[in-house]
Amino acid sequence: MSTNKRMGKQTVCYQVPPIILGTGTVAGKKESEGPIGSYFDVIAEDNVLGAKTWEKAESKFAERATKEAFKNSGVAPEQIQYLFGGDLLNQCTGTSYGVRDFAIPFVGLYGACSTMALGLCMASAFIDGGYADYCGAITSSHFCSAEKQFRFPLEYGGQRPPSAQWTVTGSACAILGDKGDGPMIDCITTGKIVDMGITDANNMGAAMAAAAADTLMVHFQDTERKPSDYDLIVTGDLGYVGKSVVIDFMQEGGFDLSKNYNDCGLIIFDREKQDTHAGGSGCACAGLTFCGYLYKLLQNKQLHNLLFVATGALQSPLSVQQGESMPGIAHAVSIRANS
Amino acid sequence: MSTNKRMGKQTVCYQVPPIILGTGTVAGKKESEGPIGSYFDVIAEDNVLGAKTWEKAESKFAERATKEAFKNSGVAPEQIQYLFGGDLLNQCTGTSYGVRDFAIPFVGLYGACSTMALGLCMASAFIDGGYADYCGAITSSHFCSAEKQFRFPLEYGGQRPPSAQWTVTGSACAILGDKGDGPMIDCITTGKIVDMGITDANNMGAAMAAAAADTLMVHFQDTERKPSDYDLIVTGDLGYVGKSVVIDFMQEGGFDLSKNYNDCGLIIFDREKQDTHAGGSGCACAGLTFCGYLYKLLQNKQLHNLLFVATGALQSPLSVQQGESMPGIAHAVSIRANS
Repeated sequence: MSTNKRMGKQTVCYQVPPIILGTGTVAGKKESEGPIGSYFDVIAEDNVLGAKTWEKAESKFAERATKEAFKNSGVAPEQIQYLFGGDLLNQCTGTSYGVRDFAIPFVGLYGACSTMALGLCMASAFIDGGYADYCGAITSSHFCSAEKQFRFPLEYGGQRPPSAQWTVTGSACAILGDKGDGPMIDCITTGKIVDMGITDANNMGAAMAAAAADTLMVHFQDTERKPSDYDLIVTGDLGYVGKSVVIDFMQEGGFDLSKNYNDCGLIIFDREKQDTHAGGSGCACAGLTFCGYLYKLLQNKQLHNLLFVATGALQSPLSVQQGESMPGIAHAVSIRANS
Repeated sequence: MSTNKRMGKQTVCYQVPPIILGTGTVAGKKESEGPIGSYFDVIAEDNVLGAKTWEKAESKFAERATKEAFKNSGVAPEQIQYLFGGDLLNQCTGTSYGVRDFAIPFVGLYGACSTMALGLCMASAFIDGGYADYCGAITSSHFCSAEKQFRFPLEYGGQRPPSAQWTVTGSACAILGDKGDGPMIDCITTGKIVDMGITDANNMGAAMAAAAADTLMVHFQDTERKPSDYDLIVTGDLGYVGKSVVIDFMQEGGFDLSKNYNDCGLIIFDREKQDTHAGGSGCACAGLTFCGYLYKLLQNKQLHNLLFVATGALQSPLSVQQGESMPGIAHAVSIRANS
């Protein structure tokens, strides 16, 4: 294979960009009431799609989002060679139970909240490499299952500090192919683990900000692009605190993000009206914001060049209890409208 | 890219097979006392490499196994473009903390005990696709962290039924490249999720057996090979119960595995002498057996053609408590000695 599509150490630019043929999104009630609520395919008014537990609900969300993506892309499950996906639940059961009936070869990913971008990286590489005609990328998160697993039982009613973020309830899936119409993935930059030594599980944004800045700088260096080459640069779910940290880090690195940079955690919720403190988080934060909203702006040519950088924190509640810091990771996907 | 290396729906055969340049293994005391104990690079006599918790120990194992793989392959971390890995711990912290200092772009995987094979699939595809000169695949498991997380606190001393398996304590890493000397990966078959409806967390082997049989049959159909084309076919960690189920399933499917098939869970421990009931399990079962033992048989040409099929069960303790069954998955990697 030719390697001339590799740029720098962490970036691959495709000579024939894989195409995102369609997406599917399922969102919770709060998400539907946010600024981009009208962009989602399915709204779960009850937040559980009738499921008996929050974890089963998350799997139902994943199943439904994947089915919506099949429909919207016009690609049937039998045509798809690989499905890449994961979520925040222990052992990634949100995804594995959600997609188990589709009989698609499955590559389980764990990228925490960076999973949507990681899935797009893997799926686009497998399309470009000729291993598949069609691939899917899926992720999910649920406010209730996440709070229960990572923080406090909801019934406890623990107070949330201003730096805390609100886990997005929803699931998003994208279907990629080697031909057809739709936004195109032209470059991917796969991130390194970056650990700033932050141990406050209520300050995830800051923990992930350094990883986001690292991946952004590497992306610009590898591709010799600059922030102004993109209409919009979005990070995954850093929220209000993490976003400002990224802007500062990038400024120090000589990159000005003040004009065209935002964070999915600040796009999906109205912080003031919806009382989400520092903004949204969770795999579905970047998932829904990209697959629901940004994807459609690219389809309609309202956006021409997007740099989508989903971010994840790789700790567990147990590792934090054992005094460990929270390593972050971020993966960047450059997507342009199909001209 | 040409697609003619694709065979059937789930299999890719490489025209230029990626090479496994070296492996690194760290094993616990019990593993070192088993039939293949002499094949491991590092033995942790204390089972924790001096760490204060079992989870921190698992990360230390992962870090050390990766360093051994760097050394044995002669490849430095700076030369490696992608590291693929994961483990059984919640949020895959065994791997992420273990490899965080290497500054290698990281793709977190969740394949439960199939992770070693899944990592080899991803790493070989990224080499073949021209995205990397060198890739790594890493996984780990620890008896104590696994029992604590999935079953009972060790202090409880719960009785283990005959079908229960013994989670292997260890970590294994493989480094792949596009040129050099070493065993070659010529085909990969990525598995589908298969759910037999089994809900007994002490009978994982049976839960995974159907997935193993599904992937094996698809592999033989896709490649038009037969079991006798391999010197040895090994599944990941089905143990005594699961192995017999696979042989029966394959017999029904018209494939005779009675002559050259074994399971890593039965290779790594002496069931009678070591009292491991149905045999070994855990990510490190297939990891150590392949990277420590089978890899060296391929290097020495004692084995010429190996079909390595690691198997995973995709449930969580919570999903089982909520009455869910345990979906299984298996990924197959065909590896031949470098002639």
